[in-house]
Amino acid sequence: MYDKWLSDRSRKFDSSGIRKVFDLGAKLENPINLSIGQPDFDMPQPSKDAAIEAINAGKSGYTPTQGVKPLIDRLQANVDAEYNDPNRKVFVTSGTSGGLLLAALAFVNPGDEVILFDPYFVMYESLVKMVGATPVCIDTYPDFKYDLDKVAAAITPKTKMIIFNSPANPTGVVATREEVEGIAKLAADNEILLVSDEIYRCFSHGAFTSPAQFNPHTLVLDGFSKSHGMPGWRVGFAHGPAELIQTMLKFQQYTFVCAPHAAQWAALKSLDVDISEHVEAFRRKRDMLIEGLSDLYDLGNPVGAFYMFPKAPWGTASEFVEKAITKYKTLVIPGNVFSRRDECFRLSYAASVETIERGIDALRKLAKDPN
Amino acid sequence: MYDKWLSDRSRKFDSSGIRKVFDLGAKLENPINLSIGQPDFDMPQPSKDAAIEAINAGKSGYTPTQGVKPLIDRLQANVDAEYNDPNRKVFVTSGTSGGLLLAALAFVNPGDEVILFDPYFVMYESLVKMVGATPVCIDTYPDFKYDLDKVAAAITPKTKMIIFNSPANPTGVVATREEVEGIAKLAADNEILLVSDEIYRCFSHGAFTSPAQFNPHTLVLDGFSKSHGMPGWRVGFAHGPAELIQTMLKFQQYTFVCAPHAAQWAALKSLDVDISEHVEAFRRKRDMLIEGLSDLYDLGNPVGAFYMFPKAPWGTASEFVEKAITKYKTLVIPGNVFSRRDECFRLSYAASVETIERGIDALRKLAKDPN
Repeated sequence: MYDKWLSDRSRKFDSSGIRKVFDLGAKLENPINLSIGQPDFDMPQPSKDAAIEAINAGKSGYTPTQGVKPLIDRLQANVDAEYNDPNRKVFVTSGTSGGLLLAALAFVNPGDEVILFDPYFVMYESLVKMVGATPVCIDTYPDFKYDLDKVAAAITPKTKMIIFNSPANPTGVVATREEVEGIAKLAADNEILLVSDEIYRCFSHGAFTSPAQFNPHTLVLDGFSKSHGMPGWRVGFAHGPAELIQTMLKFQQYTFVCAPHAAQWAALKSLDVDISEHVEAFRRKRDMLIEGLSDLYDLGNPVGAFYMFPKAPWGTASEFVEKAITKYKTLVIPGNVFSRRDECFRLSYAASVETIERGIDALRKLAKDPN
Repeated sequence: MYDKWLSDRSRKFDSSGIRKVFDLGAKLENPINLSIGQPDFDMPQPSKDAAIEAINAGKSGYTPTQGVKPLIDRLQANVDAEYNDPNRKVFVTSGTSGGLLLAALAFVNPGDEVILFDPYFVMYESLVKMVGATPVCIDTYPDFKYDLDKVAAAITPKTKMIIFNSPANPTGVVATREEVEGIAKLAADNEILLVSDEIYRCFSHGAFTSPAQFNPHTLVLDGFSKSHGMPGWRVGFAHGPAELIQTMLKFQQYTFVCAPHAAQWAALKSLDVDISEHVEAFRRKRDMLIEGLSDLYDLGNPVGAFYMFPKAPWGTASEFVEKAITKYKTLVIPGNVFSRRDECFRLSYAASVETIERGIDALRKLAKDPN
């Protein structure tokens, strides 16, 4: 009977493969954990203090659907300063994931096509399927660059949305200004909604460019989880054309209700905190991995976020990762979690220097120890 | 172009009418606010302390999808003690609303029918429409009792789910044991998924009965928002057959990710807090309203939650409420927000004694001041 009760949409996607690696890893003692999708630093002390102050001030109730006014005002001022577009409005979401779900519900119909760049963040494909639409994956191997001709060729009358993510999870690739401009204009010319997931924006060791600079219809999703080490607080924001934001807010009323209250005050304070020390630490860790592994691994071109997506030097990615975990206690995520291909693995450097050193050592041995 | 981008599901429901009253009320000075859907007391100090302790201990990261283990263990022990059913499993949701959304996504197909009792909590109807299903409303006027014959008559081969809510928002009615047992068995006999929203369970001034006592397939949604005055923390829980819970967890991964981290530690501590003082205060406030208004208003049979749903003594509910707000600065919610009928209005007694006294005074004048 229970099986009969499951919705059709629940049969269209699986539990995250990341979770399966975490479950495997939980059984290991002192693993070398290079699988984590959240910062290895804690949230700033001033943000903690702001959350505690909110708690002590009795801010335990619902907030307005769109978020508390001081946070909205501050985010709106930032957006105004960057885009100078009176129709671009911001609201507070329950994490960047919350913004993604609202966008899928508000804009994607069953039968629509949504263009993703493969490899992609796991949630994109599942969300598209969840709302009954078809993910259309553009293969970006081997260098994870954005090929405009491929994007143009993938567009059909059913194409409703393009989900763009730079700096990218899982590859760490940051799109060039030319690539961003090309995709932004292609979306505008074809009246396709461009969703730009900018959650890793702050962790770009090259120049970051948002497609919203070239296409005012772009919906931007951003958040505090990665930039300020506070993913457990579930607070992010979205900005885009007022008409789109209004519709997302209507869905927010019946789903998330509001982002967590104290979290919004913590986020407001986070906007005053300088995070350049963390950006620099990630850059150094990335460089350690490049230095330590690039003679044995093709690491791609990791410029941002805190990931790289190296090619498995032997076997399929799944075979490689299985041995990494079972023999070398090294937790990485097989690329088929993020991709139609099972060739690469995601290496996260949101880890201590010591863990990265141990990881380099293990991965060097593993490269020379094929199945 | 923006209108073209909106999904079909976004056109099927409106913004909450509650929000419209709030917007009206925001323009009034010192209104008599009897419209609030959250407790008028703050969360317990020990729960605040637990949240602060979690913050100071660096619990800023994601939690497992199902929630932090101590909270899960504690909730599971409670569920085990109450139901003694090894297949009944619990997990932590982002508020009770979060559990509702996950249930709609996990179990309801486009074209399915979902039975609601009219009047209903606003979110039910919108959520059902959001997933492409049809709300089938059973009219429970004038006494808001559950008529089993009407429920049986409403069942068709397309009926997938019944959403049951006792104590009820907006009526304050608590179903009798016989009514609960009847609906529970009707659902089981017809292999229809029964969802029991028990968010107001603790505020029952009569005996509370869960349909899960009679039907082990029942999915129960509950939370801390109302019981412990912490709706802004977005933390609730769901329990039901393991197979159903597993599927809801799969959706949680790609939507809410996890309930807010510090919130879960606050919730754990809340389980140790005696809330009988608040229950008693609500009972007294309900009695004040009954004493002060029942000669002029038909108040229904308000036994639980912190609402009653009186019949407007003249005009439609919308006309009555408009005058209540504009002439008497008294904020209540017109019944058509919760119902196909525009006859009653929701009166919330989650307010100070002074506000309730002012409200009684205003509502007495208003009853004698027809349009």
